[in-house]
Amino acid sequence: MDTDNALETLIITRDDIAEIVAAVGHDHLMDEVISGLDAAFRAFDLREKVPIRDGFVIGKRRQGTLEWMPIMSRHEALIKMVSYSPENPLDRGIPTILATITLFDNQSGHLLAVCDGVVATALRTGAASALASRALARPDSETIGLIGCGAQAVTQLHALSRLSPVKRALVYDVDAKVAQSFLRRTAFLGLDVQVSPLDRVEAEADIICTQTSVAIGEGPVLTGTGLKPWVHINAVGSDLVGKTELPRAVLERSLVCPDYLPQAIREGECQQLPPDRIGPSLPELLQRAEEFSGWREKPTVFDSTGFALEDRVAVEVMLRQARALGCGTFLPVEYLAEDPQDPYSRPRTRARSAPRIRPVRQPRSLTERSS
Amino acid sequence: MDTDNALETLIITRDDIAEIVAAVGHDHLMDEVISGLDAAFRAFDLREKVPIRDGFVIGKRRQGTLEWMPIMSRHEALIKMVSYSPENPLDRGIPTILATITLFDNQSGHLLAVCDGVVATALRTGAASALASRALARPDSETIGLIGCGAQAVTQLHALSRLSPVKRALVYDVDAKVAQSFLRRTAFLGLDVQVSPLDRVEAEADIICTQTSVAIGEGPVLTGTGLKPWVHINAVGSDLVGKTELPRAVLERSLVCPDYLPQAIREGECQQLPPDRIGPSLPELLQRAEEFSGWREKPTVFDSTGFALEDRVAVEVMLRQARALGCGTFLPVEYLAEDPQDPYSRPRTRARSAPRIRPVRQPRSLTERSS
Repeated sequence: MDTDNALETLIITRDDIAEIVAAVGHDHLMDEVISGLDAAFRAFDLREKVPIRDGFVIGKRRQGTLEWMPIMSRHEALIKMVSYSPENPLDRGIPTILATITLFDNQSGHLLAVCDGVVATALRTGAASALASRALARPDSETIGLIGCGAQAVTQLHALSRLSPVKRALVYDVDAKVAQSFLRRTAFLGLDVQVSPLDRVEAEADIICTQTSVAIGEGPVLTGTGLKPWVHINAVGSDLVGKTELPRAVLERSLVCPDYLPQAIREGECQQLPPDRIGPSLPELLQRAEEFSGWREKPTVFDSTGFALEDRVAVEVMLRQARALGCGTFLPVEYLAEDPQDPYSRPRTRARSAPRIRPVRQPRSLTERSS
Repeated sequence: MDTDNALETLIITRDDIAEIVAAVGHDHLMDEVISGLDAAFRAFDLREKVPIRDGFVIGKRRQGTLEWMPIMSRHEALIKMVSYSPENPLDRGIPTILATITLFDNQSGHLLAVCDGVVATALRTGAASALASRALARPDSETIGLIGCGAQAVTQLHALSRLSPVKRALVYDVDAKVAQSFLRRTAFLGLDVQVSPLDRVEAEADIICTQTSVAIGEGPVLTGTGLKPWVHINAVGSDLVGKTELPRAVLERSLVCPDYLPQAIREGECQQLPPDRIGPSLPELLQRAEEFSGWREKPTVFDSTGFALEDRVAVEVMLRQARALGCGTFLPVEYLAEDPQDPYSRPRTRARSAPRIRPVRQPRSLTERSS
């Protein structure tokens, strides 16, 4: 352990994330999150209880949330704080989903790191859909339908394109301008992306992703008629009690796989189903893939509410890359007094030669400790 | 709003806290927290539901916790993350209680500030006991008994000395060295502080504070015999399901006032009482002080589990002082992309002249916005 930094906190900012993305590239970063998530889901103990996220309702129209998502691992505890404010892009020019991830040493309680969670959230949400689609969609799925073309749609299509032989995307948004700008935002993928009416999306897509900010009680966001018999749907937008995107009839005829069951029955599409009609969770599905492979020819749904396990994987990727690049900044956030039993004693100081704030070229591994 | 900093996060570090304490002084800082807390408790709507804190058990011996404590106010949401690791001082040379406070804008979800919570926690826990003691102890209380002489004991005695005519403190700790060092740690108070056997503490104190790290099931930490008939006890150490510090018989003959009832019945001394034997909460007590003034001559207990409302007051004091002193550092923590609907677009940048990381002399008010 680097004693100079041992009692400080590694801050990974917007600029560090930009440095990581620029150095590593979108594709490699997404691939790392996908493979990390695949491994984490396969290793996940299905009996493990993870706290269900909880939160506040926020915003003038009370359609937003601010939530905390905790998860414990062997050496660390993670708490992601994530907000959903659908009016952010138009009213404030900032993303609908904002997030910050905090990591703590689970022996001392020390705050190890504070990391942007906006990019991590977008990456891991896409990665989860890609893994679900690999397990449940036809292997020759070439046409993707996207309903809702905001920020999350970009990483949905990107992630799917990494695991499936995607050629075409048919995209729909209630805001035609947002659908149109999606072509520019995904130009880097080199796919045939077309703005389409909803009925065409439903009729032609092998895989559909819904990531809308439909309000509580105002769904569903597709009709559910004319779908391909083998359609796989990643329902990504459900994240509020009462908010759902899919018609109940679609769920009733599909194998519905939640990311984390206790959360999905509270705020996912699974709100619409009795417990005995819910299929295996995504971790279970990946652990017993062969058993469910027959469903590739039948309708399936991945009910993606967002699972803290996914955030852990994404932040591990970010911190590993930060370490490799030497980006990030250590700050002494917690007041650690010279005498730990005297909160009024002077703060521990760094070695005299260290500047007060500095970028660190060799941040210590936060996630791969041997002890 | 300072547009340059509007989408960044104010970080208040260990060094900033030290600067605030040095500039303002312990007494003034404590007085500000006490008066802020008094006002906040009087204004608190007793019907308001605050999420009960939840958390993980941590540590090798599983006697620690890492918890999250959320509370919403008019403009902001606060989440404190706080850990309790009783082996920290001896094993690691750091405080038992570590904490970090995060503040969010409750319209956009933006992370406004990350602030050390170690000092804020110590201050507000002392302040709460001082207010409870003013309401429930005899006004001429001159002798304070302290059981458990760690970091929290310092701010308990300090806070009590600001509101009561304290002359003497009798202090006891299972670790004699810790009791002895308490004299040095509280020398700044100019009081007659004596290490004492437990029975003398119990027999002579007008006000007793218990802030121990007794393990689950290993209490009580005092016998409850020979206490003064008007003794007021601040039971500060209970913060775990199963952990209690006081004998049930003491609780049964006292007016027991929790800080926040739903939490106290889960992890405070109130665990030991049936609901109909629990008195008014501290906010209720302060709102209806006259009604309970007769209890000053009778035994009373303040069941202090730690309430997020107290943290809000303490962080408001810290941020106000940081603003006045111009300390703190703005960092762009969240990845806010130029195009909010494209997580892969470049990050928003600052004005060209702004350095990447800098101390800010005029941080914007985070807690006193007019809008």
